[in-house]
Amino acid sequence: MRICLFPGTFDPVTLGHIDIINRALPLFDKIVVGVGTNAAKNPMFSAEQRMAWFNEIYKDDKRVESIAYEGLTIDYCKKIGAKFILRGIRFVSDFEYEKSIADANRTMDNNIETVFLTGEPKYTSVASTIVRDILKNGGDASPFLPQAVINFLKK
Amino acid sequence: MRICLFPGTFDPVTLGHIDIINRALPLFDKIVVGVGTNAAKNPMFSAEQRMAWFNEIYKDDKRVESIAYEGLTIDYCKKIGAKFILRGIRFVSDFEYEKSIADANRTMDNNIETVFLTGEPKYTSVASTIVRDILKNGGDASPFLPQAVINFLKK
Amino acid sequence: MRICLFPGTFDPVTLGHIDIINRALPLFDKIVVGVGTNAAKNPMFSAEQRMAWFNEIYKDDKRVESIAYEGLTIDYCKKIGAKFILRGIRFVSDFEYEKSIADANRTMDNNIETVFLTGEPKYTSVASTIVRDILKNGGDASPFLPQAVINFLKK
Amino acid sequence: MRICLFPGTFDPVTLGHIDIINRALPLFDKIVVGVGTNAAKNPMFSAEQRMAWFNEIYKDDKRVESIAYEGLTIDYCKKIGAKFILRGIRFVSDFEYEKSIADANRTMDNNIETVFLTGEPKYTSVASTIVRDILKNGGDASPFLPQAVINFLKK
Amino acid sequence: MRICLFPGTFDPVTLGHIDIINRALPLFDKIVVGVGTNAAKNPMFSAEQRMAWFNEIYKDDKRVESIAYEGLTIDYCKKIGAKFILRGIRFVSDFEYEKSIADANRTMDNNIETVFLTGEPKYTSVASTIVRDILKNGGDASPFLPQAVINFLKK
Amino acid sequence: MRICLFPGTFDPVTLGHIDIINRALPLFDKIVVGVGTNAAKNPMFSAEQRMAWFNEIYKDDKRVESIAYEGLTIDYCKKIGAKFILRGIRFVSDFEYEKSIADANRTMDNNIETVFLTGEPKYTSVASTIVRDILKNGGDASPFLPQAVINFLKK
Repeated sequence: MRICLFPGTFDPVTLGHIDIINRALPLFDKIVVGVGTNAAKNPMFSAEQRMAWFNEIYKDDKRVESIAYEGLTIDYCKKIGAKFILRGIRFVSDFEYEKSIADANRTMDNNIETVFLTGEPKYTSVASTIVRDILKNGGDASPFLPQAVINFLKK
Repeated sequence: MRICLFPGTFDPVTLGHIDIINRALPLFDKIVVGVGTNAAKNPMFSAEQRMAWFNEIYKDDKRVESIAYEGLTIDYCKKIGAKFILRGIRFVSDFEYEKSIADANRTMDNNIETVFLTGEPKYTSVASTIVRDILKNGGDASPFLPQAVINFLKK
Repeated sequence: MRICLFPGTFDPVTLGHIDIINRALPLFDKIVVGVGTNAAKNPMFSAEQRMAWFNEIYKDDKRVESIAYEGLTIDYCKKIGAKFILRGIRFVSDFEYEKSIADANRTMDNNIETVFLTGEPKYTSVASTIVRDILKNGGDASPFLPQAVINFLKK
Repeated sequence: MRICLFPGTFDPVTLGHIDIINRALPLFDKIVVGVGTNAAKNPMFSAEQRMAWFNEIYKDDKRVESIAYEGLTIDYCKKIGAKFILRGIRFVSDFEYEKSIADANRTMDNNIETVFLTGEPKYTSVASTIVRDILKNGGDASPFLPQAVINFLKK
Repeated sequence: MRICLFPGTFDPVTLGHIDIINRALPLFDKIVVGVGTNAAKNPMFSAEQRMAWFNEIYKDDKRVESIAYEGLTIDYCKKIGAKFILRGIRFVSDFEYEKSIADANRTMDNNIETVFLTGEPKYTSVASTIVRDILKNGGDASPFLPQAVINFLKK
Repeated sequence: MRICLFPGTFDPVTLGHIDIINRALPLFDKIVVGVGTNAAKNPMFSAEQRMAWFNEIYKDDKRVESIAYEGLTIDYCKKIGAKFILRGIRFVSDFEYEKSIADANRTMDNNIETVFLTGEPKYTSVASTIVRDILKNGGDASPFLPQAVINFLKK
């Protein structure tokens, strides 16, 4: 069974994240979305809320699960039996950073491989930081968000 | 009438900013310099001071105006009737970030176009962050600054 | 009157080219598409054919003209009274090359400015080289092509 | 069954190619190495020789096969039932080119996904073009080559 | 006598830093490691500790010295008679930032040149930020660290 | 004695090349300009002419010599006792290519180090390929060229 961890902050979940997960589904038997709860960051949405969105979006697909995690990504991979880390890359600067992290993880555990997918070009600008900036300024971020997040924001 | 917004922090105004505005002048009928007053950032110079520099530099050119603004850039464009956002790009990493913001703005309002100019190579290293670092350490930043800012700093 | 030259090889014209022209139209009073006839390259389509596509696509918009040209771009700009060169940038590697050419042109004539626009993300991969590769291998390139080119290829 | 195509020129096969295949093996049930026979290129080694190296290296692993192919990559994927294209990325410039090709392939067939892996840093400089340059100048390229290629070159 | 300053934060010293110093040794008669004590940053290890590591590693090589410094790098260069600033570059994004700083330094003092070396590919991912992240999460960062730092961490 | 090889095609010599050599002079006791005579390329100017320009420009500085060479760069380094290869980097894409060559050279001979300098920003666009393009089209390339080359072209 091929299990992969898709780590991220997902603050909030965007169409870009969903695009990557959907593209990765044929490649893995199980995708565990690892919602980062790094104490140093001050998220806009709680880890519970971020997980709840994934649970709602994939309520009919048992291959996708979400969990909250902290600590080293490779430690969490071992815990859940994941041999793969999934990352979406949109930009050159993403790529360099991601490659650097993937190299470091490989040095620490050579049995865990990072797999990169590129999303659809139309999702290239759909970064959570941009979405948060729009929300803070009272703009309409719905073109970048899945229905579950749009519904939540309307409440 | 072609109106453009040139948004930025301008903390402080540099020769690089002035180069971009001067190069853009033949392209537009009016350039509104939007001095960002993002509450989250803690600027070295007040928004009033940053606007005052532009007013002094362009006191004889009615095509250039400066205003303080906060909120979404596209909302401010609509308010002032600007169909164009002007951005200078110096580096590859600038370009990726700027393209991402331009794509997001376009998704929110397809009638506003971001126009990119590249400044003279000699202004490539003239970043406000570098200038602030020089000033904080008591160095001479005058090779990077317009006369109006040099005069202010001498006081 | 703001005249710009949009130089390129356009072998063939793609939806990416048309997207850039359409986005540039509000910015200029006239856009002259300069179809390069560099003797060193061996184009797939004749310069006449490439010009014919632009003429067909913009037959109802007198602001867009196409001409064949060779020699230095800035010399042609002077000939037609263009103060602006228009370029679309899709990628980081595009940007570096384009910036280098823009700098060289500026060194030769400081009155001609290169204006950069970024196209819609969905046209990011629509490069003429990729289209030619698809056509040579008998593939269907129509998702990347304007109707005028599709009609021609069907004949 | 997850089948992937690993297309390339492999002129010659390097340790970098083998590193990518070995890292991809846990991810797929079958990896078909597609040795490109693009007529326009003038390879240093025949397609037969390039395939022979893969056959020798993976003679005990039935999950790796090599075939010669020409034409569109996605057409060949359909022919062999591959839903995945595998690509190694070493550099930023690789990444942009690869992303562009992946986007184009996705536009033509949305069911075929390109999967990117990054090789070990020590193989970053192991490009076939560099190896060919060393060989043409009578240098020792063995630090970059698998044993099967070293043996062939010694003959 | 060719003296160079190797400025950095070194929080902590990594194998990547040592690789760059060792590669630079044949080029200079003296390398002064400038341990930055920028008040704004909150380092994990004290400046004294960071200097102590260099002193231990190079205790038998009088060509390498370490000092703590703050303020402008070019001011410190003049103070110690260094005509050269040494920087290691690992990534494209490093390069752009470093080039920008080097240009700014050159504008302020045209007699001080920044010299760039690239480290061994296997040290590409060995960034102090990644090491700190591993340490904070209780991971084993020893593959990235010189023996002097490993010994300290074991205490 | 610190000897370095500055390899290149120099077709023709530009102000960018001279800027790099002049900046490198304080770093080395001798700089050997290696004029590449790669048979595969069809240069605009003969190797003799390219060497003659360097000889004229540095006729009063015995630290700079020029020679024609072919074959592997590291082989030539050994022949002339050079422990260093000098390269100027202008762009991100330059940097990646240069790093890749430097890594390959280091793998073949770990005693030869590649040293990178960045030129003045105003020479960033001064590429020999752009200069050749200007010359072929009858333009004035003198802003990019040293006096020795300008004199030759006037003849």
